This record gives sequence, C-alpha cells and structure tokens, in this order.
Amino acid sequence: MLRALAKISVALGPRAAGWVRNMASHQLQVAPPEGLLKPLSVPNRLLLGPGPSNLAPRVLEAGGLQMIGHMHKEMYQIMDEIKQGIQYVFQTRNPLTLAISGSGHCALEAALVNLLEPGDSFLVGVNGIWGQRAMDIGERIGARVHPMIKDPGGHYTLQEVEEGLAQHKPVLLFLTHGESSSGILQPLDGYGELCHRYKCLLLVDSVASLGGAPLYMDQQGIDVLYTGAQKVLNGPPGTSPISFSDKAKNKIYTRKTKPVSFYLDMKWLANFWGCDDKPRMYHHTTPVTSLYCLRESLALIAEQGLENSWRQHREATAYLHGRLQGLGLQLFVRDPALRLPTVTTLAVPAGYDWRDIVSYLIDHFDIEITGGLGPSVGKVLRIGLLGCNATRENADRVTEALKEALQHCPKKKL
Amino acid sequence: MLRALAKISVALGPRAAGWVRNMASHQLQVAPPEGLLKPLSVPNRLLLGPGPSNLAPRVLEAGGLQMIGHMHKEMYQIMDEIKQGIQYVFQTRNPLTLAISGSGHCALEAALVNLLEPGDSFLVGVNGIWGQRAMDIGERIGARVHPMIKDPGGHYTLQEVEEGLAQHKPVLLFLTHGESSSGILQPLDGYGELCHRYKCLLLVDSVASLGGAPLYMDQQGIDVLYTGAQKVLNGPPGTSPISFSDKAKNKIYTRKTKPVSFYLDMKWLANFWGCDDKPRMYHHTTPVTSLYCLRESLALIAEQGLENSWRQHREATAYLHGRLQGLGLQLFVRDPALRLPTVTTLAVPAGYDWRDIVSYLIDHFDIEITGGLGPSVGKVLRIGLLGCNATRENADRVTEALKEALQHCPKKKL
Ligand SMILES: Cc1ncc(COP(=O)(O)O)c(C=O)c1O
Ligand SMILES: Cc1ncc(COP(=O)(O)O)c(C=O)c1O
Repeated sequence: MLRALAKISVALGPRAAGWVRNMASHQLQVAPPEGLLKPLSVPNRLLLGPGPSNLAPRVLEAGGLQMIGHMHKEMYQIMDEIKQGIQYVFQTRNPLTLAISGSGHCALEAALVNLLEPGDSFLVGVNGIWGQRAMDIGERIGARVHPMIKDPGGHYTLQEVEEGLAQHKPVLLFLTHGESSSGILQPLDGYGELCHRYKCLLLVDSVASLGGAPLYMDQQGIDVLYTGAQKVLNGPPGTSPISFSDKAKNKIYTRKTKPVSFYLDMKWLANFWGCDDKPRMYHHTTPVTSLYCLRESLALIAEQGLENSWRQHREATAYLHGRLQGLGLQLFVRDPALRLPTVTTLAVPAGYDWRDIVSYLIDHFDIEITGGLGPSVGKVLRIGLLGCNATRENADRVTEALKEALQHCPKKKL
Repeated sequence: MLRALAKISVALGPRAAGWVRNMASHQLQVAPPEGLLKPLSVPNRLLLGPGPSNLAPRVLEAGGLQMIGHMHKEMYQIMDEIKQGIQYVFQTRNPLTLAISGSGHCALEAALVNLLEPGDSFLVGVNGIWGQRAMDIGERIGARVHPMIKDPGGHYTLQEVEEGLAQHKPVLLFLTHGESSSGILQPLDGYGELCHRYKCLLLVDSVASLGGAPLYMDQQGIDVLYTGAQKVLNGPPGTSPISFSDKAKNKIYTRKTKPVSFYLDMKWLANFWGCDDKPRMYHHTTPVTSLYCLRESLALIAEQGLENSWRQHREATAYLHGRLQGLGLQLFVRDPALRLPTVTTLAVPAGYDWRDIVSYLIDHFDIEITGGLGPSVGKVLRIGLLGCNATRENADRVTEALKEALQHCPKKKL
C-alpha cells in the first residue's frame, strides 16, 4: 500500500495543474475493498413472494441495452409510449400520467406531498402496513391524519368510509387495492363517487394488484392511482407508474404552498413527461435503462391484453388455493370474494415457525416465499404469483416444496 | 374493439369469484396503444455530454442479470460491497455510507431533509444550477436559506466562505465540487476545517467530479458527500452514493422533528443498509438490478485504482483542451487550476447558435454534447469525458466532429 502511494505521487508528476496542487497534502488512506475484486454472481431464484417478481425475458433484454440521453428525442418517445401504456393498464385518459423515478413508496410519497398541504385532513384505511406507511408520510407532511384502523384481513365497506368522510371531512382518502401484507382485495366500486360527494379525493395503492385484478381508474372515479414495476409488470424495482385525475391535478395546480419535495414536485415532473404544453425542461436524470424495462413490461401486457392478464392471475391463483387447501393448509382470508388474485396469504400452519418454512424453500428449492409484514408478521405466509410467474406449473412447484418443508421443518407438539 | 370486449365478458364467465362481480358493471374503454406494439429499439450514441455517460461493458452485463429479492442474503452482500466501494472512492471510513434509490437530486434532497430542520440557517454557494437547486430544496424544507450568488464560472474562496459563516451562522454549507453547468472545479482544502470552526457542517456535491478529480472526504473534513452512478462511474442513472461523517450522523440522530420524507429518512436507510447494529428491516424495495450495476461500477474503479482514474481524466481532458484550443475555440474557465477534469465548458463560438452545433453532432456523428444549463444556457457548450469515455480517441472524435460542425452550421456575420 505504501509503495503504491509513493508511485501515485510520482505518476501525478509536478504541480502543473490546480487539481494536482490540492493532492500534495493528501494521501489515499482507504484501500480498494477485497470483496469488490471478486466477480459479481447472483443465484437463480424463483421469486414467488409478494414481489419483486422475476423479470420477463423481454424485460431482461431491455435491461442490458446501452444508455441514451435522458433528454434525447428517442427517450421522449419511449416516455410517451410508457405514458400510453400506463393509461391502458390503469384504464384512464388522464393526461397527467407518468412514472416516478423511485419505488412504490416513492410514488406514495409523490401522491401525498403533492396533494396534501400542512393542516389538511387526511383519512387513511390502515388495515396493514401500507396504510401505516401512508399515515406516517401524511404526518411528516403536517396533515391531520385520521386512521381507520382494522386488523390485518379487514377491508372497508362503503358505509364505514362514509362515516369517516362525514366525521373528518378529509381532502383525501387512502385505500389499498391489493393489501399484500394481509392478502385482501379491497372492493373499489362506488368509493370514488362517495368520496366526491364529500369533496374528497380518492388515492388508491395498486402496487400489488395492478395487472392482476380488475381496476378501472376512470370508471371507478379514482383520483390518484399508483403501482410499482416489480410486481405483475415483471420489471426491475425503481420506477412506479402514477396517474392523476383532473380533480387531483386541479388541487395540485391551485395549492398555496410548494410541495416539500423538489424531486417529486408534480408540476416539474408533468413538464418533463410532456403532460403540459410547455417545452420539456431538465428536472432530474431519469433512470433511462429502468424506463426501457418499464416500456417492455407495459408492451407485454398490452400484447397479452389486460383482461387476459386478469384471467391468468385469477386462474393460476385459484388453482394454487385449491392445491394449498389440498395439503390441509388454511387460507388467511376467509371470504373468497376478498382474496387477492396475486398474493396469497396462508395462516402459518399450527406448530411451525414460519421462518423455518421460508428458509427451507429457499435453501432446498431456490424458491422465495415470505412471512408476514408489519401487523401480519407471525400470522401468515405469503405466496405471490405475479405476471409471467402466474402459472399452474409454479403453483405446483411451490405446493410440492411446501409439502416437503412441512415434513422436514421442526414441529412443536400442540 | 367491441367484439373484443364481448369476448372478455364471456371469457370471464359466471360471477364465480368476488373480483369478477366487480367487473360486470365496467368495460375496457382505453385500448392498448399502437406505439407499444412496435419493438423497442435504441440508437447507438457516444455520450460526451455532462452525463449520463455510456455504460461500461461490465456494467451493461450486470444490467442484464435476473432479479433476486431485495432482502436476500446475497443482496445484502452486494450492498455491503457497494458500501465498501463507496468508502473507497470517497476516501472515507464513515459507517453511515450507502446508495440512495434515486438520482443525484434525490441524494441532495436526502442530505437536506435529514440535516435541516425548519428554521435552520443554510448557507449555499450558488454559482450555477446546482446551488439553485439546493436553495430551492432548502426553502421547501423551511430552512432560512442564505445564497452566496456568483455568475457561472465563479467559485468560493476560503475568505468568502468565512464571511458567510460569520454573518449567517449556518448549520450547513453547500458547495459543488464539480460545477458541471459552468465547468468549475471548486477547491476543497481547508473548507471543512473552516466550517467546523464555525460549528457548521459541510455538504459537497460531487456528482460530476467523483472518480475524475481528487477528493478525500475524511481528510478534507467533508460531512456529507454524494455523487451519482451515471457520470464517471459509467452506471445507469437511478442510484446515488452518499456518506455522512459522525458529526452529520449525530445531527441526524438528535434532530427534534422527523425528516419530512419517509423514503429518504436516513435512520431507516441506515438500518436497511446495515449501518446500525439492529437487524435489517424492510423499508422500500431497492432497485436491485441498478445496484448490481453500481457494484460493478465501483469494482471497475477499485480495480483501476482511484489515482489512475484521476490521472486518466486529467490527461484525456487536458488533451481535449489542447485540441479544442487548436481549433481556435475558447475555454469558458480561464484559470487552468479551476477547470473541471471531467466536464469541459467551451464559450459558444461567436456567430453560432449553440443548438445548431449540438444538433449537428448528434445528427451526423451520433455524438452527444450539450449546451449550458440554468444560468449558463447560451453561454457555453459542454463536453464530458466521463469514466471509460475519458480517452484521447474520444477527444479526437469530438474535436473532428466539432470542426466539421463549425464549417457547416450557419454563422451570422458579426
Ligand atoms: C401494496 C403495496 N404497496 C406499496 C408497496 C411498496 O412498494 P416499494 O417496496 O416498491 O416501495 C408494496 C411493496 O411490496 C405493496 O405490496
Ligand atoms: C454537479 C451535479 N449535481 C447534481 C446533478 C443532478 O443529478 P441528477 O440529474 O442525477 O438528479 C448533476 C447532474 O447532471 C450534476 O452534474
């Protein structure tokens, strides 16, 4: 190391340029890490947790393409195609439709920092971790947050929502369509209309459901809808589609304060995504190659047809439910009408530690399933059949693996 | 389309499951977009603007790898290696070192939301667009922002900074190491020490300089340093290395209010990146494949050696400067000691419209260079030799292309 440092100062030569002058007084003190000298290798995993899912082959290919500039005209075209693809999968005609440069949480934060101002009343369905997160972010922004708390497995009826609206007069209601921590599919018919009667906007998280369960943004009167790239869309995490109704857009454009985030300021993003009529201006460097991937994810579902994708998930997941019940396992959500067709929750089988089962599957089969999350930890195991992974074959594979795990994992006497 | 819709409702069959019941009242109204039915194709571009740069071959390969889970142990190992790689390129031993899941602006916002509380005094060097952006974000957070405004091309002496510190008693000073909109390399020796004498933390943006110009986080007393993946590191945009000194960490862990962002809350991120001693908890889904790429970017520079990378940029850019001057062109930064060894700014040659020159290069050579940005628009052309693109060959290519552009682009009589 010392020899190497001596060589550097020679190599850099006389104090010719200013940046060399700076160096004279310093020496490298942190050596290159050993770990990085080994080549990267990643295992081959079948991702049957609640997401991320595996990349579809065409998405994988797009991820290996060379960069172009984030402001090249070809990139604007890709962004325009992404916008149209999102409008299709969301079933919306909203002009203010784009992808956030971040994960699902980042899209949630984008929705909240743009729609809420300090002091605004915010009604939140908290029936799992996602509502907790919405509440947390709302509080940071300084909104008056009113949680409607339910145990995992609960959902919200129109009547319950109406009571909340009447009592708290919120400007915004948050609901999770696919509550992936509990396995609940929240019904959405009538909620938008109800909110609008109370002058409230409806914000829906469809990170775990979009593409896997019917959703009609415009017809259901949803004002803000977001999802993530890494679930049914089989893309890499890092971009998150989002769309705003005219009502929501109006709230954004008439707010009194600037949103507290510049990175997520929707007026800037709308401009960069060509959603206003001004020339596009640099805002931040968008994740170019992740956007290639998102474009391909959306192209795949456009080719397949949304309704075929819904059916694929419904059928594969119904088949999985049958097979799991065949093993004597218990689905966590009792009412079949409320079961998410993407992520299945299973009551942790009596006598077992859920961690043993999860480890067994990854160690012996390279299959990922997961335990619960937030309030559902210890209560459930979660199996996701997402996008191209939603097949009977995968349902069979995970069922067989589970069967073996149940035979081999330690079981306490009850 | 109508035929297709009729088919769907048949295919979905009787109202067997709850999610079908919802559908009965709705119909697809937005058709799959035509544009998405065409295959994705991207042009082959030599990116010699101020970034993003081209992906190095090894990074490109990593971008084409299949997903694993964001919480798999192999992923934690990759994250640990990234952390060590960042410590090496930043020359720091800070335990609180990680990559933000977002672009350079996102890292800047992460620094500011974690370090500033409403009412805090914040001193900002505004000698180009990056200082403007820091000021904008600081204001949104509710800090008392004190800009030190200079024309593009200016930099800050120790004396000027000391006056600002004495007058405004800030908790934080922002400086841009590589001011890529003007081409200025801000000296950094002594600034950390000076700040600390005034009980101020020093935040440095090295998005456009890291890996291309000497920087010693610990020795220079920098409290927060961030960069982006898409410049010298030749990675895809979407992840941004950041590190915090113990002083900065202490400010974060003793603040009175929660940071306004959950996505960027450093206590959560520190935990997920294994920078505290608690077990890692899910925070958000990190951009797994972009992190593969970042790992490879850092591995490349660890293999090359930081000092060799600095020399490569210094030499290639000095060579470029010579060639440009050989064409009779004028470098925008007069003092050679203040010229950035990564991004070169050129005064727009008299009589030309800079847009014509930029377009000529992209249309005729598939080479990207850019105009100015923010306050330097119309004043400069910008050429970046970043990472693996920092070669004499590329300097020659862009010089020859420029020469031809100057012959063919319209020139006003002066
Ligand atoms: C329903 C739901 N909402 C939000 C998220 C958060 O998304 P991310 O982890 O990408 O931030 C998830 C991720 O699992 C989810 O399933
Ligand atoms: C010096 C500097 N700071 C910050 C940024 C912003 O980074 P991003 O565009 O990734 O948000 C850039 C990008 O060009 C930069 O050059």
